[in-house]
Amino acid sequence: MDHLNIREIDKAHKRIKSFILRTPLISNETINKITQGNIFFKLENLQNTGSFKIRGAINKISQLSKNSKLRGIISYSSGNHAQAVAHASKIFNTNATIVMPMNAPKIKIQNTKKYGAKIIFYDPTKTDRESIAKKIALRENKEIIMPYDDLDIIAGQGTSGKEIAEDLLKMKIIPDIFLCCCGGGGLIAGSSTYLKKKFPKIKNFSVEPKYLNDTELSLKKNRIIKNKKSAHSICDALLAPQPGKLTFPINKKNLNGGLSVTDQEVKNTIKTLAETIKIVAEPGGAVAAAALLNKKINFKNKNVVVMISGGNIDYDLFSSISLKIK
Amino acid sequence: MDHLNIREIDKAHKRIKSFILRTPLISNETINKITQGNIFFKLENLQNTGSFKIRGAINKISQLSKNSKLRGIISYSSGNHAQAVAHASKIFNTNATIVMPMNAPKIKIQNTKKYGAKIIFYDPTKTDRESIAKKIALRENKEIIMPYDDLDIIAGQGTSGKEIAEDLLKMKIIPDIFLCCCGGGGLIAGSSTYLKKKFPKIKNFSVEPKYLNDTELSLKKNRIIKNKKSAHSICDALLAPQPGKLTFPINKKNLNGGLSVTDQEVKNTIKTLAETIKIVAEPGGAVAAAALLNKKINFKNKNVVVMISGGNIDYDLFSSISLKIK
Repeated sequence: MDHLNIREIDKAHKRIKSFILRTPLISNETINKITQGNIFFKLENLQNTGSFKIRGAINKISQLSKNSKLRGIISYSSGNHAQAVAHASKIFNTNATIVMPMNAPKIKIQNTKKYGAKIIFYDPTKTDRESIAKKIALRENKEIIMPYDDLDIIAGQGTSGKEIAEDLLKMKIIPDIFLCCCGGGGLIAGSSTYLKKKFPKIKNFSVEPKYLNDTELSLKKNRIIKNKKSAHSICDALLAPQPGKLTFPINKKNLNGGLSVTDQEVKNTIKTLAETIKIVAEPGGAVAAAALLNKKINFKNKNVVVMISGGNIDYDLFSSISLKIK
Repeated sequence: MDHLNIREIDKAHKRIKSFILRTPLISNETINKITQGNIFFKLENLQNTGSFKIRGAINKISQLSKNSKLRGIISYSSGNHAQAVAHASKIFNTNATIVMPMNAPKIKIQNTKKYGAKIIFYDPTKTDRESIAKKIALRENKEIIMPYDDLDIIAGQGTSGKEIAEDLLKMKIIPDIFLCCCGGGGLIAGSSTYLKKKFPKIKNFSVEPKYLNDTELSLKKNRIIKNKKSAHSICDALLAPQPGKLTFPINKKNLNGGLSVTDQEVKNTIKTLAETIKIVAEPGGAVAAAALLNKKINFKNKNVVVMISGGNIDYDLFSSISLKIK
């Protein structure tokens, strides 16, 4: 594939569909009342491995050559891509080595181990995971499975957008707005490509943590801008340092702008999602809903699709959020 | 309607479908691995009002005469039926009065109020709600909306079974086992009627809290047996004192037996459902999953449908469960 289009996403969907859950697109009366909009949540937190990342990982790893699979693969991730790569590697009989930050959520580390991957921990304050992965890849002649800057990964994540489009068309709903979390930008690049093709008037918005809003800033300045190294957020899945080389040009074409949310807004949203929709969302998976609930743009009388991208949150954090907010 | 059949459930579904969420039927790889079965969860916790009860309430209240609606209705419930009746009353322009125990979960009381119902609290250790409701009904000439012993309510709840059957048929899956919570028995009576008609070999099992297993005991003895008055459980939605006069004959015909689970098994299950499937289930909504996860019968290589009936749990309880179990 040399560029992304919806035919590639359709092909990816065929490749992966027997390995993934077709996640539901649901509405909720109470949320519609609060927002005065017509809101549809795509529940990728219910996906196998607890996030959308399995879509891209299976699309990529299922296509590796026999030799690549024999040599094993390497990847780096704060956790959701890690679990997905570990799981996909098991399905397609290859060995995975994953470079993970030592402060990754426990649930993500445990599950990555459970799926049988070898984990190499690093200190994210001292070094960066990409360079560690590259060194090992070179030394051991292993293929790197990139978290987002790979067209097969982007097409795989885009299958979520394809399912959204199909479900909306079945309901005869034309979406006005798509809100999607954005770390490296793979999910929103793939999904917005599909949605914009099917619904040319849709407005796509990335949502990021407040001080890690590299895509929002890059879209404004029309060039790639990095986050400050000191920037921090509870959204561990959205800490990519800058927009991807492949994802940014796609997002520049598809997106109408970027939104950002504070950690406190994310925490409140996690609680609201649990109490109202009865789902468990992780911080990074809840940012799009946080933009919605905090009315970052006008949603009144609009058909809005909100991506809930993952649910891998340590139960202790999940509980402490609830106990602190009264 | 003088007896329940699937045509009545089909009619109920037509009546209510624009007011309810068609809840998803989802599978989860990790749960399939743990149980060695092929498990499908029906997520009624995602339903409007947070439980299946809105199905029956709308089917009933939408059919009330103009005069009944003018006089207002009365009901009694520990909370899920209360919220559903309150909400349905608002939709169909009638006033609801609900008799609720003073120790009902806060979330259920708050939501019932939010939907605009008048609540009359009673002390469940001293009196029973049915007799209070009957007194008011007589005095104020109001119709009682029964929580389960009404064929329109049972047919309404049965629409959940209809959706399950349709989704399974679409996937070409023949279910072997249906596990469903049982309080008064309306949901399981309606749903098992539909499932048994579409899949005659299915085995239906009620699941109850350990010392409130009146349906399990009644099925064994082939007559209605009451729970001990002292029996208690965290499953506030499943405290009905005995099987219903209408529900029991239906369940006697449809069910292959009853199962029961301890409060500790329910708590562990609530945690597993949050961590694995990423959903919030209330204690009563989690009993069927608890029977599954604690292997109360043999699920190996079986296609099993598990009802998650509601998600209205106080966030404090939800959190404390997690903090206590390590």
